[in-house]
Amino acid sequence: MMFADRLFYRVNEMNNPTVLGLDPRIEFVPESIRKKNPTDALAISEFNRKLLFTLHDIVPVVKFQSAYYEMLGPEGAAVLKEGILFAKSLGMLVILDGKRNDIGSTARAYAEAYLSPGGYDADALTVNAYLGSDGIQPFLELCEKYEKGVFILVKTSNPSSGEFQDLRLDSGEKVYERMADMVRRWGSGLIGEHGYSSVGAVVGATYPDELKILRERMNETPFLIPGYGAQGGGAADVVHGFDKLGYGSIVNSSRGLMCAWKNEIYKNRFSQEDFCEAARFEAVEMRNALSAAISG
Amino acid sequence: MMFADRLFYRVNEMNNPTVLGLDPRIEFVPESIRKKNPTDALAISEFNRKLLFTLHDIVPVVKFQSAYYEMLGPEGAAVLKEGILFAKSLGMLVILDGKRNDIGSTARAYAEAYLSPGGYDADALTVNAYLGSDGIQPFLELCEKYEKGVFILVKTSNPSSGEFQDLRLDSGEKVYERMADMVRRWGSGLIGEHGYSSVGAVVGATYPDELKILRERMNETPFLIPGYGAQGGGAADVVHGFDKLGYGSIVNSSRGLMCAWKNEIYKNRFSQEDFCEAARFEAVEMRNALSAAISG
Repeated sequence: MMFADRLFYRVNEMNNPTVLGLDPRIEFVPESIRKKNPTDALAISEFNRKLLFTLHDIVPVVKFQSAYYEMLGPEGAAVLKEGILFAKSLGMLVILDGKRNDIGSTARAYAEAYLSPGGYDADALTVNAYLGSDGIQPFLELCEKYEKGVFILVKTSNPSSGEFQDLRLDSGEKVYERMADMVRRWGSGLIGEHGYSSVGAVVGATYPDELKILRERMNETPFLIPGYGAQGGGAADVVHGFDKLGYGSIVNSSRGLMCAWKNEIYKNRFSQEDFCEAARFEAVEMRNALSAAISG
Repeated sequence: MMFADRLFYRVNEMNNPTVLGLDPRIEFVPESIRKKNPTDALAISEFNRKLLFTLHDIVPVVKFQSAYYEMLGPEGAAVLKEGILFAKSLGMLVILDGKRNDIGSTARAYAEAYLSPGGYDADALTVNAYLGSDGIQPFLELCEKYEKGVFILVKTSNPSSGEFQDLRLDSGEKVYERMADMVRRWGSGLIGEHGYSSVGAVVGATYPDELKILRERMNETPFLIPGYGAQGGGAADVVHGFDKLGYGSIVNSSRGLMCAWKNEIYKNRFSQEDFCEAARFEAVEMRNALSAAISG
């Protein structure tokens, strides 16, 4: 089944558009796990597995942030690969957040690396399209071949994203709007049975106005929305990413789930050793908040 | 010593602005090397070492294309790390072509991964700045701390690079020109004693007019020029990347050197087993062609 439809079904089945972001740093890992593992990479691997197992029956998608595994060297690459396999074995959809970009045969190599069954075999990869169509085409080919997806950066969640993405073109549009049109065009050949494409867009929760503009501009494009929680976005901010049926976006929370025990509102309730209980509690809260906002 | 100056000295010492691009695919590796190595990754590792050893006394810089190592999984990560170490032990400067991009703490993680002594420890990394300053600042901090460099994508060598990079802004400039101004500004705090910054730009050999415009627009920015050889750029195309003293750019050749034995002009002269001799022959030709074009 196409990625677009696998995503649709999985989110619908759990009635939850949440993405668990795994951007682990060793400081996030409780002492007990650090003690029994000989390396930081192995401790992070156990931390990930515990979170994945705790959340897999209520959170449909996991997003691994590649940088944190690359930071651990070759051992980190192994932890990433095992983590992807483990998440998939639990039935979760896996997005690798690598923001890869290159041209021609090199873009093809990245696509093979992350989307092919012989590689890391994620279900979808985040991609940066500054290089234009030649840099995207190889990803589209592999999305078709292996029923995988990509999420292309359109409007990112960081404070300075506007420096470049909000520049106005002489045609009157902004740069991110033109990018949106290109993403829509690239995705037009990979539309699933529910009307959404396997080619998605990354649109930050921290820019609700732009999210609204983009939802109207790209009605076949699923959005991956980062910036919820720690970066300041809330349920009310992401609501415009959803269509009238309550679908159309998935919303990532990384530190908000991984480090839920630290959240001020749970003060004195959880210790770091309770990170799984805290993450599950927060995941339910987040699902309910999103659900209320969307149906509201 | 700052990266900007290390690059300047190294290129000057060899009187050669060539960069050996290592984008190896297993098909490039001769039968004899494939036979004696149990895995593709190990065969590629030996292929790389042979090329590096053959060229290190005439080619100052090597660029590893990260995608081809990522494609080999965790074992590829180990091959990349060993390759970087080996190249540095031969005195070569190492650029990792990863076109990384992210924001805040994740950009910091990429910078730590590739530029810190505890990570892959390359001398420089290619970076994509679609996300704006927050995505670049962490790289600049590590460039200062560890005397490393970055090369930021400005005008890439691929046929469709103009789709996005050549869009005209309402201010009259093109997108890539605005990117050039941002790169120049980011680099202004990291200028070496020869007037060049440790923050460089990627500008394709296949766009000589844009190269000329950019050389004038960013007179403190060293250029990394891909697209020479296999992609169609020649010595006459890259000449505008150089300043009046013959410095200012480094020119990458990947397949042109790795697969020199296949070059039509050396027909019947080299077999695949002679790939090192062919690469050295071609490296001398390339150095002489660049030298003649620059001084001409």
